Amino acid sequence: MISNNFIEKIFRQEKKSVSRAITLVESGDEKATNLLKELHKRTGNAYRIGITGPPGAGKSTLTNQLTKYYRKQNKTVGIIAIDPTSPFTGGALLGDRVRMSEIGTDPGVFIRSMATRGNLGGLSKKTIDAADVLDAAGYEYIIFETVGVGQSELDIANAADSTIVVLVPESGDSIQAMKAGLMEIADFFVLNKSDRPGSENAVTALRTILMLRDHTEKDWLPNIIKAVASENTGISDIADEIVRHKSFLENNELLLSKREEHFRIRIKEIVETLIRNHLWRDKRVSILEEKLSIVVNRAESPYEVAEHLFSDFQDQIVKQ
Amino acid sequence: MISNNFIEKIFRQEKKSVSRAITLVESGDEKATNLLKELHKRTGNAYRIGITGPPGAGKSTLTNQLTKYYRKQNKTVGIIAIDPTSPFTGGALLGDRVRMSEIGTDPGVFIRSMATRGNLGGLSKKTIDAADVLDAAGYEYIIFETVGVGQSELDIANAADSTIVVLVPESGDSIQAMKAGLMEIADFFVLNKSDRPGSENAVTALRTILMLRDHTEKDWLPNIIKAVASENTGISDIADEIVRHKSFLENNELLLSKREEHFRIRIKEIVETLIRNHLWRDKRVSILEEKLSIVVNRAESPYEVAEHLFSDFQDQIVKQ
Repeated sequence: MISNNFIEKIFRQEKKSVSRAITLVESGDEKATNLLKELHKRTGNAYRIGITGPPGAGKSTLTNQLTKYYRKQNKTVGIIAIDPTSPFTGGALLGDRVRMSEIGTDPGVFIRSMATRGNLGGLSKKTIDAADVLDAAGYEYIIFETVGVGQSELDIANAADSTIVVLVPESGDSIQAMKAGLMEIADFFVLNKSDRPGSENAVTALRTILMLRDHTEKDWLPNIIKAVASENTGISDIADEIVRHKSFLENNELLLSKREEHFRIRIKEIVETLIRNHLWRDKRVSILEEKLSIVVNRAESPYEVAEHLFSDFQDQIVKQ
Repeated sequence: MISNNFIEKIFRQEKKSVSRAITLVESGDEKATNLLKELHKRTGNAYRIGITGPPGAGKSTLTNQLTKYYRKQNKTVGIIAIDPTSPFTGGALLGDRVRMSEIGTDPGVFIRSMATRGNLGGLSKKTIDAADVLDAAGYEYIIFETVGVGQSELDIANAADSTIVVLVPESGDSIQAMKAGLMEIADFFVLNKSDRPGSENAVTALRTILMLRDHTEKDWLPNIIKAVASENTGISDIADEIVRHKSFLENNELLLSKREEHFRIRIKEIVETLIRNHLWRDKRVSILEEKLSIVVNRAESPYEVAEHLFSDFQDQIVKQ
């Protein structure tokens, strides 16, 4: 059982309890589920912002500056940094330390890094669970920050109210963004490091690509905001654009429908995880292992083995 | 039912029937499953090569040159090009036409493009199904070609006997590859466009990163092969490195265990797809839709709705 005392401390935004709660939801066990059921009642107040883009675009710097901007307005901020950690470098750590010394000691800021390594599929669920903890704890803005490679940026677009794609002027970057599917998820773009040469060309290229889009489908046309995050330039423009997008969603009754769509995806994933946990247990794991050499020797096909396992699952899933 | 005549034509490598078979497996219906069960007996002879890397690294050109090289040795080649198509450009088409005019008319080459758009998760299954068709049809080499963004390059590493990561000398590329997880999947690297400045530095940087790796874990240390695919330079070195890697796998009894691991992943995915098809049907889809506004209004949590759906699934999954 989850103690009321623990929950009260989360609601009072006590960092230690918030941190413990996120560690608990990361574990994904039954206690975590019980906590999340309790916390859900108090969620829905935070505005969730996704920040993504290619490596080196300056996402962390921008997140830090935006956080400082919100703090000046006396708003509290929770940051979830999703890091597709390489086993060679353990890259997340250094960035985190720099960040912690800058804003991490501020009582109105909570920062948590979550690594994607070996967590494909499972991460988005835990990321959103963690955001629910921060939301229930009363953080007014929640920022998801993730490098736009892999599945993670799609996951973030499915968790954020506003998704920002950060690019840099270097040629090819916009094309790359297009290929990587970042174009489709952006509510607006930030052209960071826009004091570099080629900045105007990059804006033009981006705008051209955006204009190819079918406008009638959706009235919101993503803007391009120029910034130099390291010099704190353009940060208020970004904050203004977030407000503009939020108002657009609210005025067109799109915020609730967007959140419903996010809940749809999330519930499906929770159900499928529940089933997967029942599916890959003792007996069926052994059946699968025994069948592998048979499949390699072509005596049975993967489809026959799969049907066998499915049939066994049907026999066992019945409630006891 | 699948006619014997159709299957015989596939075994005789008649392009029209091979093409029809792949279209069938792309549909994913029951007839496709029956065909794949039949074909499985005749698979396992092709050597499967994955080619991946960032956009613009020259993967298509390299695939074409390697194919021509194999054709000179009288080997047949099947190519599956996986394209994370953007809705703005329909990018796959142009590249395909160029390619078709070069090698597509060769009777010993079969080319098929498959788009990932909206198919996340589902694609790898269909990609491997398509490879099975080509394998059963007697193509000696099967090349999977995919841009290294998203989940697709991991899927390819889980389908290929040898995985090649193609990079270019431009600075930052190796770091990007590292971040994107391409390092972990490479059996060897090709530094393409290696006549450009910075080529030697890129090789050194890559080698340094590779040396950070824990060697004792695995005896195979990925090599770096320099090439200029557009000028047909380095292609035989690449083919030689594929032979060397294949021999390494065979001599250490790793080829079969690698293929067993790939079957393990594949069978799991087939079972989970079977279950998903049973799960998201009429009644449960309506329950989910009805609950969304309730969840948004915080009267029920996503976890409660998920448990409700899981319970309903348990009641219904029982065999009739």
